[in-house]
Amino acid sequence: MSDIEIAQNAKMKPIINLAEEKFGIPAEHLDPYGHYKAKLSLEYVDSLSHQHNGEGKLILVTAISPTPAGEGKTTTTVGLGDALNRIGKKTIMCLREPSLGPCFGMKGGAAGGGYAQVVPMEDINLHFTGDFHAIGVAHNLLSAMIDNHINHGNALDIDPRRIKWKRVVDMNDRALRNITIGQGGPANGYLREDGYDIVVASEVMAILCLATNRADLKERLGRIIIGYKTDRVTPVYASDLKAHGAMAALLKDAIKPNIVQTLENNIAIVHGGPFANIAHGCNSVTATQTALKLADYAVTEAGFGADLGAEKFLNIKCRSAKLAPSAVVIVATVRALKFHGGVERDHLNQENLEALENGFENLERHLYNVTENFKLPAVVCVNHFTYDSDDETALLVKKVEALGVKCIISKHWAEGGAGAEELAHAVVEIAESREPGFEYLYDTDMPLWDKIETIATRMYGAKSISASAKVKAEIARIQPQYGNLPICMAKTQMSFSTDPTAKGAPSGHIVEISDIKLENGAGFIVAIAGDMMTMPGLPKVPTAERIDIDDAGVITGLF
Amino acid sequence: MSDIEIAQNAKMKPIINLAEEKFGIPAEHLDPYGHYKAKLSLEYVDSLSHQHNGEGKLILVTAISPTPAGEGKTTTTVGLGDALNRIGKKTIMCLREPSLGPCFGMKGGAAGGGYAQVVPMEDINLHFTGDFHAIGVAHNLLSAMIDNHINHGNALDIDPRRIKWKRVVDMNDRALRNITIGQGGPANGYLREDGYDIVVASEVMAILCLATNRADLKERLGRIIIGYKTDRVTPVYASDLKAHGAMAALLKDAIKPNIVQTLENNIAIVHGGPFANIAHGCNSVTATQTALKLADYAVTEAGFGADLGAEKFLNIKCRSAKLAPSAVVIVATVRALKFHGGVERDHLNQENLEALENGFENLERHLYNVTENFKLPAVVCVNHFTYDSDDETALLVKKVEALGVKCIISKHWAEGGAGAEELAHAVVEIAESREPGFEYLYDTDMPLWDKIETIATRMYGAKSISASAKVKAEIARIQPQYGNLPICMAKTQMSFSTDPTAKGAPSGHIVEISDIKLENGAGFIVAIAGDMMTMPGLPKVPTAERIDIDDAGVITGLF
Repeated sequence: MSDIEIAQNAKMKPIINLAEEKFGIPAEHLDPYGHYKAKLSLEYVDSLSHQHNGEGKLILVTAISPTPAGEGKTTTTVGLGDALNRIGKKTIMCLREPSLGPCFGMKGGAAGGGYAQVVPMEDINLHFTGDFHAIGVAHNLLSAMIDNHINHGNALDIDPRRIKWKRVVDMNDRALRNITIGQGGPANGYLREDGYDIVVASEVMAILCLATNRADLKERLGRIIIGYKTDRVTPVYASDLKAHGAMAALLKDAIKPNIVQTLENNIAIVHGGPFANIAHGCNSVTATQTALKLADYAVTEAGFGADLGAEKFLNIKCRSAKLAPSAVVIVATVRALKFHGGVERDHLNQENLEALENGFENLERHLYNVTENFKLPAVVCVNHFTYDSDDETALLVKKVEALGVKCIISKHWAEGGAGAEELAHAVVEIAESREPGFEYLYDTDMPLWDKIETIATRMYGAKSISASAKVKAEIARIQPQYGNLPICMAKTQMSFSTDPTAKGAPSGHIVEISDIKLENGAGFIVAIAGDMMTMPGLPKVPTAERIDIDDAGVITGLF
Repeated sequence: MSDIEIAQNAKMKPIINLAEEKFGIPAEHLDPYGHYKAKLSLEYVDSLSHQHNGEGKLILVTAISPTPAGEGKTTTTVGLGDALNRIGKKTIMCLREPSLGPCFGMKGGAAGGGYAQVVPMEDINLHFTGDFHAIGVAHNLLSAMIDNHINHGNALDIDPRRIKWKRVVDMNDRALRNITIGQGGPANGYLREDGYDIVVASEVMAILCLATNRADLKERLGRIIIGYKTDRVTPVYASDLKAHGAMAALLKDAIKPNIVQTLENNIAIVHGGPFANIAHGCNSVTATQTALKLADYAVTEAGFGADLGAEKFLNIKCRSAKLAPSAVVIVATVRALKFHGGVERDHLNQENLEALENGFENLERHLYNVTENFKLPAVVCVNHFTYDSDDETALLVKKVEALGVKCIISKHWAEGGAGAEELAHAVVEIAESREPGFEYLYDTDMPLWDKIETIATRMYGAKSISASAKVKAEIARIQPQYGNLPICMAKTQMSFSTDPTAKGAPSGHIVEISDIKLENGAGFIVAIAGDMMTMPGLPKVPTAERIDIDDAGVITGLF
């Protein structure tokens, strides 16, 4: 059965009843969206601070460098969560909301897979509770107010050539990457170049995910720098345009965490979804904190491999929200490691011990980063595929355990929570026995350049970083006022280097910083290494062509 | 108190309970969106066809030509509905969903006013149940698939210069009216001119509002003509791009009618909102049919004055959905008639019997159109304002009743349903005593040119219509294949003529048809008379600047 068929056969429970049954959440604090989705009131979340000690343990699920072979980070997060519930640990999974646009391209859905999914799958993958639409509108309201302000006399003296705030749409639409707006004469405003990003790349998305309450949200929105005045250096803030109040009003409901269930009727919070390449790639702080207040365990994932996802989760989100994980699960697959070891995509189903040995260095590097750079206890989860041979899995277990780390072959994709019980036990053992000695990779008071270099050398194995004079000047310009912000690296997820084809664990390379982006509302500096795509395109035959709905409203073709 | 303050003080009942209490709708057929909004399942709507005879009476609320003074069509629809319920007629009000974009510009909300409102007001005015977001995404998916198709080789031979399908956003953003897309090199596709309309102007909106079920919706989406091949004449359909299945999937929930309540806890269906200037300007067929199946009375409104709103409601929506109103309420105000009689906006609060007399011709023309052109029984509702003098209202009643039509001074804005009871009695008397002899203004098998001329001469008092050779050629081109479609007039709402400053009841003018737009999915031909704005702009000081939300989530500044 396909993912969507498994999801459509799920025996879902009404979410209001389930939330009450599992965690005693009173119905009046849940806003239902249909019968199987709900938003939790912020007042309830706040009230928990006083009732609970927030002693829940936070488990981060991260992965090796992604490959076309697939690793299954979300699937593992769901499977592990279901398994923890099975072995008696009250657990909530915290996931990102999928972006709608890519569902129509190549990627398909992002609500887990096989027997480890969150449901209702179609809703979660399409409009869900409307959060991304709200974020898109809030973003585009600010865009419209910028051009409107210029049109009506530009009292703020905004330099139209130095506007950094683009427009967004939740669609893969390459034709909108670079556009010219304001054509057609005076009634349509002033001509200028602009462009569209996908909604998940919006700073509003990052802000929503890092905001701790409504006041913080509005303040961060007001701090957004949309561009500069004609003196080239004075920032223009969203608050100068008086846009932040209306933007926050548009996010009235989007800031509330969304509750759904897994196929095994456990609670998952699916909330927020900042792009993992240009932003920090984790679900909302509100979601994680809510889960930690309600449950014994909160299992969450961060986008891409541990070099990007875990690094940003730990240095940005955990720092900002004062979180500390009790254990890290690094997901790998035999197929993906063989790919890192040089096997072509078409031959991944054939046993190849040598390639597995070769590709192992990718996992080893990520493992080292987690345990040595961040001083966090880790366990490796091998997400089992049908074609994995016994010799391959045995070799992999042997190599991981030689490093003093537990390695579990996990079958949650095929068997749901039951297939991940061993993983759950391993996680509990680590989380409950060892004192984690979590350290950030860098202090925020280091100079920006040094922070970037620290990430590149210690996480990516690079020799050093480089940048053009222009980028260096930009770093120097923002250092005095914004130098204390953490770094949000934007680098290809496919490699430790900036070359997506450099598989395994390349070392000694130079990371070229091609651009610097100050996201003052989100509270980080984006350092872009190489070309970063903030607006995907559709493939020649987009998935959209086979997505359909029948007369009874049943959707097919979404996978 | 402001509208939003009145709305926030409403004693709302949980919508699921209210729908069950009032109309016996089982909870499982309602998808809640929070506690005060719900979507009704289409299966339930279908099941009603067999239980009920659909004998509900349909009341259309329309108005004189709009003025800046305000007429209060939505307010009257709500007030009349509440009043009908008070006098023992089970009534459901059918309203359009407000467009979010204009809330941030000048217009403010569109959920009624004073003590005749639908609630929750902020939700209805902002994202509501996400219908407009879904329509926007469905529209923009098709846009992305067009440029993607061309980018990947253009197998369909689409002429990029003849693409009619633009992009949409629910925002007042003049800078997007005319744009150039595909800039930045080969990776971003082919350069071409494009533009954005506001979501309510999307053909997808019109389609959703005219579709009778899911199959009809998908078929109509497939019939959309996005442009022409390089032979200049062969249409390219959305179905050629295989986009309609995914578009219909995106509208899975949007097609379900939304149920909310009035301040007096009566049920209103708020569903769909096609632009009244470029589209037909009425709420969805599904909504109206559902109300007629459930209630004794369905009260609904149509955008702008009766020359546009009522005409399109009757000739397009009623024809397509086989509906016939039992009575028409024409809303007028003393202030607006004085404006039509030549009084400046700043002096409308001063008594001026002569101006009222002069402006009366506007009401008289609309009244004639309804009763003589469509053979429908009418009643005039004077929506009472505080400053209206007794002599003014007496004069107005006298003049209307001299025409053999009842004229009621109604105070629902200040008093809610109680203030509109006399209006309700008048409507019931007409609807239940007289046999309406409803006639369409034209037969669809008339040639397109003749249909347009019939509307212009018989509804607008024009002498004739004119068009450039180019427009005439376009009409001739589409006549053979699409000549049987009804006409959707796009004309300024401010005047019977195409000159918005020509108040009162101008006659003998020539209506210049400046453009023709074939909306094959919606199933009508848009005839544009004069400049039609399909993307509004923001004013110098947009309402957005004063919209705010406090730490508890309470919104202010939305009026």
